[in-house]
Amino acid sequence: MRITRNWLDHAEGSVLVEFGRTRVLCAASFTAGVPRWLKGRGTGWVTAEYEMLPRSTNTRSDRESRRGKVGGRTHEISRLVGRSLRAVIDTKGLGENTIVLDCDVLQADGGTRTAAITGAWVALADAVADARSRGLIPPSAQPLTGSIAAVSVGLVDGLPVLDLDYPEDSTAQTDMNVVMTGDGRFVEVQGTAEGEPFDRAVLGDLLDLATVGCAELTLLQQAALEATPRERRA
Amino acid sequence: MRITRNWLDHAEGSVLVEFGRTRVLCAASFTAGVPRWLKGRGTGWVTAEYEMLPRSTNTRSDRESRRGKVGGRTHEISRLVGRSLRAVIDTKGLGENTIVLDCDVLQADGGTRTAAITGAWVALADAVADARSRGLIPPSAQPLTGSIAAVSVGLVDGLPVLDLDYPEDSTAQTDMNVVMTGDGRFVEVQGTAEGEPFDRAVLGDLLDLATVGCAELTLLQQAALEATPRERRA
Amino acid sequence: MRITRNWLDHAEGSVLVEFGRTRVLCAASFTAGVPRWLKGRGTGWVTAEYEMLPRSTNTRSDRESRRGKVGGRTHEISRLVGRSLRAVIDTKGLGENTIVLDCDVLQADGGTRTAAITGAWVALADAVADARSRGLIPPSAQPLTGSIAAVSVGLVDGLPVLDLDYPEDSTAQTDMNVVMTGDGRFVEVQGTAEGEPFDRAVLGDLLDLATVGCAELTLLQQAALEATPRERRA
Amino acid sequence: MRITRNWLDHAEGSVLVEFGRTRVLCAASFTAGVPRWLKGRGTGWVTAEYEMLPRSTNTRSDRESRRGKVGGRTHEISRLVGRSLRAVIDTKGLGENTIVLDCDVLQADGGTRTAAITGAWVALADAVADARSRGLIPPSAQPLTGSIAAVSVGLVDGLPVLDLDYPEDSTAQTDMNVVMTGDGRFVEVQGTAEGEPFDRAVLGDLLDLATVGCAELTLLQQAALEATPRERRA
Amino acid sequence: MRITRNWLDHAEGSVLVEFGRTRVLCAASFTAGVPRWLKGRGTGWVTAEYEMLPRSTNTRSDRESRRGKVGGRTHEISRLVGRSLRAVIDTKGLGENTIVLDCDVLQADGGTRTAAITGAWVALADAVADARSRGLIPPSAQPLTGSIAAVSVGLVDGLPVLDLDYPEDSTAQTDMNVVMTGDGRFVEVQGTAEGEPFDRAVLGDLLDLATVGCAELTLLQQAALEATPRERRA
Amino acid sequence: MRITRNWLDHAEGSVLVEFGRTRVLCAASFTAGVPRWLKGRGTGWVTAEYEMLPRSTNTRSDRESRRGKVGGRTHEISRLVGRSLRAVIDTKGLGENTIVLDCDVLQADGGTRTAAITGAWVALADAVADARSRGLIPPSAQPLTGSIAAVSVGLVDGLPVLDLDYPEDSTAQTDMNVVMTGDGRFVEVQGTAEGEPFDRAVLGDLLDLATVGCAELTLLQQAALEATPRERRA
Repeated sequence: MRITRNWLDHAEGSVLVEFGRTRVLCAASFTAGVPRWLKGRGTGWVTAEYEMLPRSTNTRSDRESRRGKVGGRTHEISRLVGRSLRAVIDTKGLGENTIVLDCDVLQADGGTRTAAITGAWVALADAVADARSRGLIPPSAQPLTGSIAAVSVGLVDGLPVLDLDYPEDSTAQTDMNVVMTGDGRFVEVQGTAEGEPFDRAVLGDLLDLATVGCAELTLLQQAALEATPRERRA
Repeated sequence: MRITRNWLDHAEGSVLVEFGRTRVLCAASFTAGVPRWLKGRGTGWVTAEYEMLPRSTNTRSDRESRRGKVGGRTHEISRLVGRSLRAVIDTKGLGENTIVLDCDVLQADGGTRTAAITGAWVALADAVADARSRGLIPPSAQPLTGSIAAVSVGLVDGLPVLDLDYPEDSTAQTDMNVVMTGDGRFVEVQGTAEGEPFDRAVLGDLLDLATVGCAELTLLQQAALEATPRERRA
Repeated sequence: MRITRNWLDHAEGSVLVEFGRTRVLCAASFTAGVPRWLKGRGTGWVTAEYEMLPRSTNTRSDRESRRGKVGGRTHEISRLVGRSLRAVIDTKGLGENTIVLDCDVLQADGGTRTAAITGAWVALADAVADARSRGLIPPSAQPLTGSIAAVSVGLVDGLPVLDLDYPEDSTAQTDMNVVMTGDGRFVEVQGTAEGEPFDRAVLGDLLDLATVGCAELTLLQQAALEATPRERRA
Repeated sequence: MRITRNWLDHAEGSVLVEFGRTRVLCAASFTAGVPRWLKGRGTGWVTAEYEMLPRSTNTRSDRESRRGKVGGRTHEISRLVGRSLRAVIDTKGLGENTIVLDCDVLQADGGTRTAAITGAWVALADAVADARSRGLIPPSAQPLTGSIAAVSVGLVDGLPVLDLDYPEDSTAQTDMNVVMTGDGRFVEVQGTAEGEPFDRAVLGDLLDLATVGCAELTLLQQAALEATPRERRA
Repeated sequence: MRITRNWLDHAEGSVLVEFGRTRVLCAASFTAGVPRWLKGRGTGWVTAEYEMLPRSTNTRSDRESRRGKVGGRTHEISRLVGRSLRAVIDTKGLGENTIVLDCDVLQADGGTRTAAITGAWVALADAVADARSRGLIPPSAQPLTGSIAAVSVGLVDGLPVLDLDYPEDSTAQTDMNVVMTGDGRFVEVQGTAEGEPFDRAVLGDLLDLATVGCAELTLLQQAALEATPRERRA
Repeated sequence: MRITRNWLDHAEGSVLVEFGRTRVLCAASFTAGVPRWLKGRGTGWVTAEYEMLPRSTNTRSDRESRRGKVGGRTHEISRLVGRSLRAVIDTKGLGENTIVLDCDVLQADGGTRTAAITGAWVALADAVADARSRGLIPPSAQPLTGSIAAVSVGLVDGLPVLDLDYPEDSTAQTDMNVVMTGDGRFVEVQGTAEGEPFDRAVLGDLLDLATVGCAELTLLQQAALEATPRERRA
């Protein structure tokens, strides 16, 4: 598990997240203005776009740009990442500005959506700090109200497992993605019975495991933010 | 809460579900053949498409067909409905046939996706029975392994509430959609903190309430299936 | 033949039209503003969108939203409905407001376009009355200058037939859709030789029959408007 | 009014039609095979595509290819042209072959759709003859069962007028497109009240005028087919 | 080789270019305003769109409008034509106006892109003169800073050849498109080894030949501009 | 300048190319089968897709997948990369297999297309070797007939400059992309006068410089292929 900040020169915040073989590049772009439907309210917006490179996976997938439409899974994960990040954003603190988080999967081996959320939060934190340091938001503004991290947990051969890689993921009977705040509360719980429906006890076990996993990732995020002096090259 | 079977003449199964003011028309279409990636395996496929009529809502929305693309929410719900139904389908029992569930929201007042799942299951059951009666699947085939029903629960003013209507839904701090089998196990749990992140205790309360709600709907589904003699007019 | 007003709670006007097995839901949405090319002229706009649910027909059709493009037939009928309604609208009387008529075919058994026109006119009348009662257009404004109704007539086995259902429609040698005003004049005449070209005498017979049919529908529309007290629930 | 055959070197049939300032290039392409839904029936297919060059009109229009969708008017006219031509085609005589008629409006000054139909029929006749001469259809096959021609007629200042040019067209109270066979029967009658609805007497006057106009065009088509020796250069 | 000016009545400049069997219709449209990203800078814009009619080629191609996307080749050539023309335009001299050059290939037999450039320049010159004569740009403005012409050259059977027609083009080992100003300088050089890579000497020979060819076309353009009195009929 | 092989675990060949701040990830995917139009000829196919990540540039660009269409520049460069690689491929040696080169720009600072070509060739070489080692092509097959590399050269302040970075690129009077084989012959020469047209002498200077640059890159490619033992992890 590794979080490399400032992997890109141009972006206001950027992180390369590596969870096992999974590698996701998260870039935060701060831009003035908000979408049309938010104009004039004095609040900002945070959104995300997730996409996989065609050969991030074991066999090549067609590009969504060539097919002319964005697939359901891509849409669904993009919405999940954006919604999760907004749970720890006070949009008033952003002013009428937008931060877009681009999460591009360079290599996929399970858990790309949770890696994306975990990395995107660090890129978001850097973009907020960058905006404050450049005077784009007031020094007193605190748009970031907390941290989030995400893990996938699942039931493999009847046992709860953390951070499924692809072979585990595709054989898991139950797959659950959990997004939690740094102080241990839930932002998203998405559990799916891939095979057998699951009962309340299994659900409890998976949530216990997810809680532990998110706490570890929270430490990793904090370490990354402290260790690297922020120094954008662009 | 009302389930009207055989609302359409042509479809192999069809249900008009009414939950409060929410009205969803669920049509099950049985067709020979499976998608290309499944061919030759001897198994069938069940999938779903969800869409809202432009004036199902309080203010008119543009048609997705005119905009030339399906929105993320539509994709996401379509996938949820299909995935949920597949949890109680043994695809081998279908042979190389496909059942598509079209869930069209005629009027929306909260809970459209859970109404769609609950109604679609009844339409699916009718379509399976119809296929058996017409000899399209063997008399001994049991592709339907159980029933599912779905509810939305939420935290409104700090209290758990079942079956949110639209005004409640849009003010809920937490919104959770739960899909359960007729025997009380979980197929999908999707909880989202709209405002404040939630803790484990709240999650437990919501799941308790959902369990009660799904059990009631299961009874309603069974009553509907028993009461109406199946008589397709087409 | 049945016209049910106020089938929807939200729409400014709504009608469920049933012609035999054909069922079309017509919703009129009144919104402030006009398309860009009409701005600043002080006149309003009336337009229509027609679409069929995927399983309204005997075999399921793909959704146009999923195919990413609207088909020629859908375009053609949408244009016909809108053009026909505009024949009895004085757009100056609407002010700079738009009324969109959504005609969604829930079940199809021939004559869906003429049912849509006939029902949409009633929904339009309700939406105009609603706008007047809410002060969105002046009490003195009379944007509705008359009524329209539509029938399909055809030559089946050499004989003129009114209101073709699907089996007749697909075997008709000539198919004609006629839109007429309540006072018996023509708004649209669209005749097509499906098989043998037709001569002037046949054309005359079909127009005679259409005239009778439209007159009947006009009575039905008037009865519907008088019978039901307008009471929108939204 | 002018019909120039063999305007293109490659096409199996091609005609440049000039009606006043209106100029439409009609190309007939004969290809082996039929659309998927017709395969194996031993019958052929005739279809048409109509489109306007961006600067065929007085002010430039955007290309439909750039907008990524075909407009409703384009669809509607393409369907009209194809349907009209099929009225004089015995598809059995074509074998499993397809003829596509491309009607591209190089310059528009009213009446483009009727010019397209009139010219496309000549190109179609040439393509059928070409196929026979090259042995692609049997010498005895008679897929062409007659001729068609089309005119637009309208009511301008209360008087019936033939072949509206653009200024007339846009001020006509009633606009009617009529497609007739060479022996004087109707294939398509499409009348639209642009302003005031019209009565049966006006309809009769317009049909009389259209009948005269189509008869003249039929003579012009025959003259064109006789005068020019068919000599394809490709 | 023939250049016919004023082939269209509506366009501000229009040219039918014929190079052998290749025929391209070039229409220049002058419109007030510039694309959004240029607004407020006081400069104009010149751009081009190239497209082939479906039956301009030996076998019919599908329309890009029907496929819903513009192909790579079409995009590439459109960009080449626009970029080439902008090399001899001083956009300040245009004011905030746009000239679009539509180059539609009516018949293709090799060299369509170079024919398009050569013809489009003449249409552009006419459109600029027209704008000046109508007072849309000041009498003193000189937006046109020179002329351009284009040829294709290639290596066929080891020998340099000018103006490849289609059979030569498809067998050429090397294909080069060269755009030059009237005073003999290069605007674009695009050479591609279709088969064997080429060396510097071959490149030199091809450029020599292109220089001769462009000089001839420049004379032809000048003759066309002098010979025909400009007389727009629209 | 750096070429890192095997940057991805799944791809048959993969290279991260870094030219200054420009970083392009090139992945070669070997798959059985060829596009429909090539089937049954016993020859293979090599093609490429180029795309930029939204925040590879200084300001964020919209994703082409979300806009629903691939832009002209993306198409043009994808075609250039594919065409260049095919110049050193003997498609017969591939059998009926396809290699797709995905070139995704992670960070852009000028010269992305030439970096993509240079890196893609190395990934292609690895994919060919991998196919041979796994027996997908015969041991004797030599589909790779040589090497290619590419540079951009330009005229900045009147002086020829190699490998323009973005600030230079956007101020260059002339911009030329040159693709050469390892033995010093030309595959593509694409020169564009951004400002002033250029003469033959300038063209000569630029080609001299490009020749030197490509030779250096050829050495770098060879070193990369020799240094790293090929060891695919997937």
